[in-house]
Amino acid sequence: MNSLGRLFRISIYGESHGSQLGVLIDGCPAGLAITEDDFVKDIMRRKSGAKGTTPRKEEDSPILLSGVFNGYSTGAPIMIAFQNKNTRSSDYANLFTFPRPGHADFTGKMKYGGFNDYRGGGHFSGRLTLALVAAGVVAKKIIKSVNIEAKLIEAGGQKNIDKAIDYAIENNDSIGGIVECRAENISVGLGEPFFDSVESVLSHAVFAIPAIKGIEFGVGFKAASMFGSQHNDALIDISGKTHTNHAGGVNGGISNGNPLIFRVAVKPTSSIAKPQNTINLKSGNTESLKIEGRHDACIALRMPVVIEAVTAIVLTDFMMLEQKLDRIIPHD
Amino acid sequence: MNSLGRLFRISIYGESHGSQLGVLIDGCPAGLAITEDDFVKDIMRRKSGAKGTTPRKEEDSPILLSGVFNGYSTGAPIMIAFQNKNTRSSDYANLFTFPRPGHADFTGKMKYGGFNDYRGGGHFSGRLTLALVAAGVVAKKIIKSVNIEAKLIEAGGQKNIDKAIDYAIENNDSIGGIVECRAENISVGLGEPFFDSVESVLSHAVFAIPAIKGIEFGVGFKAASMFGSQHNDALIDISGKTHTNHAGGVNGGISNGNPLIFRVAVKPTSSIAKPQNTINLKSGNTESLKIEGRHDACIALRMPVVIEAVTAIVLTDFMMLEQKLDRIIPHD
Amino acid sequence: MNSLGRLFRISIYGESHGSQLGVLIDGCPAGLAITEDDFVKDIMRRKSGAKGTTPRKEEDSPILLSGVFNGYSTGAPIMIAFQNKNTRSSDYANLFTFPRPGHADFTGKMKYGGFNDYRGGGHFSGRLTLALVAAGVVAKKIIKSVNIEAKLIEAGGQKNIDKAIDYAIENNDSIGGIVECRAENISVGLGEPFFDSVESVLSHAVFAIPAIKGIEFGVGFKAASMFGSQHNDALIDISGKTHTNHAGGVNGGISNGNPLIFRVAVKPTSSIAKPQNTINLKSGNTESLKIEGRHDACIALRMPVVIEAVTAIVLTDFMMLEQKLDRIIPHD
Amino acid sequence: MNSLGRLFRISIYGESHGSQLGVLIDGCPAGLAITEDDFVKDIMRRKSGAKGTTPRKEEDSPILLSGVFNGYSTGAPIMIAFQNKNTRSSDYANLFTFPRPGHADFTGKMKYGGFNDYRGGGHFSGRLTLALVAAGVVAKKIIKSVNIEAKLIEAGGQKNIDKAIDYAIENNDSIGGIVECRAENISVGLGEPFFDSVESVLSHAVFAIPAIKGIEFGVGFKAASMFGSQHNDALIDISGKTHTNHAGGVNGGISNGNPLIFRVAVKPTSSIAKPQNTINLKSGNTESLKIEGRHDACIALRMPVVIEAVTAIVLTDFMMLEQKLDRIIPHD
Repeated sequence: MNSLGRLFRISIYGESHGSQLGVLIDGCPAGLAITEDDFVKDIMRRKSGAKGTTPRKEEDSPILLSGVFNGYSTGAPIMIAFQNKNTRSSDYANLFTFPRPGHADFTGKMKYGGFNDYRGGGHFSGRLTLALVAAGVVAKKIIKSVNIEAKLIEAGGQKNIDKAIDYAIENNDSIGGIVECRAENISVGLGEPFFDSVESVLSHAVFAIPAIKGIEFGVGFKAASMFGSQHNDALIDISGKTHTNHAGGVNGGISNGNPLIFRVAVKPTSSIAKPQNTINLKSGNTESLKIEGRHDACIALRMPVVIEAVTAIVLTDFMMLEQKLDRIIPHD
Repeated sequence: MNSLGRLFRISIYGESHGSQLGVLIDGCPAGLAITEDDFVKDIMRRKSGAKGTTPRKEEDSPILLSGVFNGYSTGAPIMIAFQNKNTRSSDYANLFTFPRPGHADFTGKMKYGGFNDYRGGGHFSGRLTLALVAAGVVAKKIIKSVNIEAKLIEAGGQKNIDKAIDYAIENNDSIGGIVECRAENISVGLGEPFFDSVESVLSHAVFAIPAIKGIEFGVGFKAASMFGSQHNDALIDISGKTHTNHAGGVNGGISNGNPLIFRVAVKPTSSIAKPQNTINLKSGNTESLKIEGRHDACIALRMPVVIEAVTAIVLTDFMMLEQKLDRIIPHD
Repeated sequence: MNSLGRLFRISIYGESHGSQLGVLIDGCPAGLAITEDDFVKDIMRRKSGAKGTTPRKEEDSPILLSGVFNGYSTGAPIMIAFQNKNTRSSDYANLFTFPRPGHADFTGKMKYGGFNDYRGGGHFSGRLTLALVAAGVVAKKIIKSVNIEAKLIEAGGQKNIDKAIDYAIENNDSIGGIVECRAENISVGLGEPFFDSVESVLSHAVFAIPAIKGIEFGVGFKAASMFGSQHNDALIDISGKTHTNHAGGVNGGISNGNPLIFRVAVKPTSSIAKPQNTINLKSGNTESLKIEGRHDACIALRMPVVIEAVTAIVLTDFMMLEQKLDRIIPHD
Repeated sequence: MNSLGRLFRISIYGESHGSQLGVLIDGCPAGLAITEDDFVKDIMRRKSGAKGTTPRKEEDSPILLSGVFNGYSTGAPIMIAFQNKNTRSSDYANLFTFPRPGHADFTGKMKYGGFNDYRGGGHFSGRLTLALVAAGVVAKKIIKSVNIEAKLIEAGGQKNIDKAIDYAIENNDSIGGIVECRAENISVGLGEPFFDSVESVLSHAVFAIPAIKGIEFGVGFKAASMFGSQHNDALIDISGKTHTNHAGGVNGGISNGNPLIFRVAVKPTSSIAKPQNTINLKSGNTESLKIEGRHDACIALRMPVVIEAVTAIVLTDFMMLEQKLDRIIPHD
C-alpha cells in the first residue's frame, strides 16, 4: 500500500513531472502549531544546490491544504502539497524504450503494463522524498522531546566525502555513501515482540526511501563476528542504561532507553553522465545509453534529512501506540 | 501487531514455557494438500541437536487444528499448534530480578509492567520461530515454483564454521553469523514503490526474527563504496535479466526477475555460560549473573530455515497481491 | 480478513465439527486478572438448553493457552480454545450436494471450490460465536466502567416471545427476532469522522455475526419519516446530555456521551425440520430436503450475549484509540 | 482511520470552508481510461439545485493531480481535488459556542479539544461526500460489468416525495428518507465469513456517509417477523439463482449471485431554519438558536449517488480480493 503507520499514517502521491506531489497525514494530534515556515529548514537540507547534488531547483514551498486551522492542527487529515514547476519532460521521452540501468524504468513498465508515467521516473522518483520530509517535519514537532540526527559518515568508501565527490564528478560518475542515524531520549518499551519490532518497522520505513540497500542496528553486521561475551550490553542502572550500546538501543525488538542507532547503505546515484549499455525493449538489442539531464553525483548527500523524517514518523507512531503522546496537544 | 501480511497473514502466539505455541494462518488458498508430514523436514532443520545448538529437545509435532479437511486446506483459517513438553521453568525463576544481558528480560518487564511471562523469555523466546517455520512450510507449498534457499555463510567472522563454534563452546561463549538467502524464479513486478517495496516488506519480516541485527540486499553495504558505473546492473535481455546482480533482484522496490539475494547479520546467542554483570532490579546493585540451562552456542546455525520461512511468507503475500497465484488450487 | 479491531484485535478459527475452535486476542493490556471462571456466565447465556434453542450441548469450557500468567494477562497474545466434543458429522454428509436454503452451503462451496468443510456449516457455523463471546468477556473486563446490555425485545414479530417460539416449534418452523443493545457510560469522542464512525465500526462487527440482516441506531429507520425539528436532540448541559436520544448516542460518527443504542434484526434460523426445496448440485434437479439434526427454533434467543460481546470488543478498541484505557492495568 | 478498503483504498481530506477537498485513491489498476468528463454525471446528480437541496452552488470540477498520464491510470496513487470557491465562513462564526443540534459541532469540539475547524461542520461536512462520489466514479469504471442503482424510495415517511418536501420547506423544517440500492451481476463468492462479510464491509462504508442511521439487507427488519420457511430462499438452479431474494443476495456473509439489495435510513437534515434550543457552551445556559445559511430540506435527495459510490468502492475491493479484476486493464 501507499501508506505507512498505524496511528500516525502517511500516504504520498505525485510524480516527478506531474503538476504536484504531496503527502496526506492521518492521525496528527489536534492542537499542534504548524506554519509553512516550519518546513523551510528541513526542505532546504534536502534541496539541491550543494556540490554533488543536482542543479535542478524547485521552490519546494509546502501548501497546507487541509487539517490546519488558525495555525493549529485540527485533528482532521492534513494535506500538504508541493507544486512541480521546473520540469523538462522532453529529457525523458525515450525511457519508455531504453530503460536506465539501476532505475525502476524496466520494473515500473512491466508492473504497470506500460501505463506508468515514465518521465523522470514518474511516481518512483526520488523527488517524492520531499513529501516524506514534509511529513517528517510534522512528526518531529509532535515528538519534540526526542532528538534525531542523521549524518553522512562516508561516501564512496571514504571519510573524506568532498574529495570522493569531486572525483566522481570529474569522472562523470556517481558514488554511494553511508548515513548514520541516532535518536536520543527514546522511552523504554516502544515496539512489539516479533512482527512489529523496532527494527522491523524502522527498516520497513527506511527501505521505502529510494536507493537504500542495507540497514544495520547498533554494531550491526559486526555482531556476526563477535562473541556473546563481547556483544552483550551490561545494564548499569535500573533505568536500563547499558555500559556499551552494541544493540543500538533495542532488545527483543523493544526500545531499551539507550540511544537508537542505525546505519544505512545508500547506493550510488543510478543516473550518470557516462554512457552505459541497456536493452532496447522494442528491438531487444543492446545499445549504448547516454543519460541527459541534471543529476546528483552523490544522492547520499541529501539523505540524512529523509532518514530523520522516516525515523520521526515511525517513532511518532510507536509513541502513540504506547500512549506516550497526548491526543490533543494543549496550548503552549 | 502480532501479525504479518496483507492477503496471506500469519499471527503467532505462545510462550517458551507455556503449554503450547502456534500460528494462525489466514488467507491460505483452498485446495492446498497439507499433511503433518509436510512439516517434518523444515522442523528438523530448525531443531536442536547439531553441535552448537541447545540439547533441549522438543517433539515439535505440528497439530492441524482447523482449516484443513480431508487433507486439503479449506480456505478457512489454519491453526497449527505445538505442545511444549520439555520445559524446566525453575531454571528461570530469578530473571524477574536479574535481567539477562542481550535478552528482552528488561524491556519486556518494563513494557508490560512486570506482568510478562519471564520464564525462558516468555513470548519473546526464539522458540516461537517454530511457528514461523510452520507457516513457512505452508507458504513454500503455495509458491512451489519459487526456489528459496538460505545458508549460513560465516560464523564468528570465519568461513570455517565448525571451528569457530568449537572455539566458542570451549570458552563458554557464543558467536554470531551471517546467513545468505537466495530466491529464484521470482516474477517481475512484485512489491510497491516506496512503503511496500520488496526490501521494506522483507526486512520487516526478517527483523521479526529474534537476534537479527542487519540486512542488506544484493551487494548491500558494499554499494556505498562503489561508483554508479560499477554498481548499475546492465539489462541483457527483454525479460529483465541483468549482466550483474548488484541490486539483489530489486529496482525501485520492485522485483526485476533476477534472483532475490540478501544477507542478514545474526548476533551471538545472548545466553552464555560465562558469568556476566547485570543489575539487580530490586537493589540497583551490579551483580554477577551465571545463566543456567541449555543454550545454543551459535543460534545462527538454526536460522536458515527461519529466514527461508519468512521469505516464503512475504513472497506468497506479494504474489497474491499481484494475482500470480490461484485463489483455489485445482486438484493435482 | 479473519480479524477485527485495530489496537484490540481478535481473530477466530475453527469449524463446527473440527476438533476445536477459538480466538486469538491481540492487544489486551497487561495486568488484567483473568481466570477461566470469568467466562462461565456469558458462555451459559449463549449456551443451548432454553426452549427454542438446540438440545446439542457442549461443555464449552475455555482453555487459556497463552498470554495469561499467574492469573494476569501478560500483554502477549491470548489464545482461548474450546474443544468440540459432541459432534455428529454423519448428520451433514450430504450437504455437499444438497445446499440448505438460507445457509452458506452453496456460497461456501463456490467460494472455496468445494474444499470447504461442509459439516455443520464448517467455519461458517454459528458455533464460532462462542469464540466471539469469549473475546467479549475479556473486552468487558477491560472496559468495566461501561455497562452494556442487550436483550431480545421481539420474536416472530411479537412481544410475547415464549408464545411465538412455541408456535414455531409446533410447526417445525423457526422465527426471527429483534435484539436491542444499550451501552451506557460511554465517553464523548469515540469514533472517527467518515470511515471509522461509531456506526461504521459497530455495524461492521455486528454483521460479522451470522443471521443478522439489519441494524439501526437510535430511532433508526423511524428517522426517515421524522422532521428535523422532531429528530434533532437538544443539548441540555455542557457534558453533552441531550433531552431526547434519537441519534442513539452518536453525532457525526462520534459518541456524544449519551447512551449508545442500536437494534439488530435477526433472521429466523435457516435450519428447519419442515421439508424445503433445494437444488441437487450434481443433477441440477429441484429436490425436497429434510434437514436432520438439532436446531434452534429461534437463534435470536442466543444473540444478546453475542451482540454484547462484539459491542464490548469495538468499544475497547475505540477507547484504546482515544487513550481512555491504561496500557498496563495496575494491580487492584 | 481516514481510509476505506484493503486493495482499492480511498482516503479523503478537506473541510467545508477550507481551500479544497479531495480523495486519494490507492490501488487503481493501471490502464483505466479516465478523463475529467467522466465525473460530470455523478457530480451533477449529487449537486445542489433541485428543490429541497441547498442553493449553494459549487463548480465541483475535479482536478486530476496524480496517477493519470496520457488519459490512463498509471497504477500510482490517484489524487483528485476540488476547489472550494463559494464559502461564506461568517455564517458559522458562532458554532464554537452554540453547537447545532444533530450536528457534530459538540462532538467535534470535544474530540479535538476545540481545535477543529468548525466552519460549516469543517471536516465533518457532507460536502466531503463529493470526494466519495469522485472515488465512486473511478470504482464504477473499474467494475463496469456490475450495475449499481440507488434511488430514494420514500421521504418523510411518504412515497409522494415532492409533496413531502414541499411541506417541509413551507414549515422551515427538513425530512428524512429511505434509499434503496440494488447491484446486479455480482459474482458468487465475494466477502468473507464473519468479520469481512459483505454486510459488514458494506455497512461500514455506508455508515461513513453522514446522516445514515440504519441499514438492512434483503427484507431486513422484516426478517425478524418471518418464519424460516418463509424467509429461506430456495435455490432454483446450479448458478445459485433463488426463487425469492429475501436475503438480499448474501448468505453466510458471501454474495450468492442474486442481486445485492439493501436499504438505508437517512435522517432529516440537521440544519433547519426553525429556531431550536441548544446550550451555550460558555455559560451553560439553554438558548434559542436560529441557523442561518443555505441548507437542504431533504438531504436524502442527494444520497443515491453517494450510496452508489461507496457500494462501487466496496465491490471493487471485494472483486480485487477475489481476483475477479485485472491488475492491468488492457487497451480497449
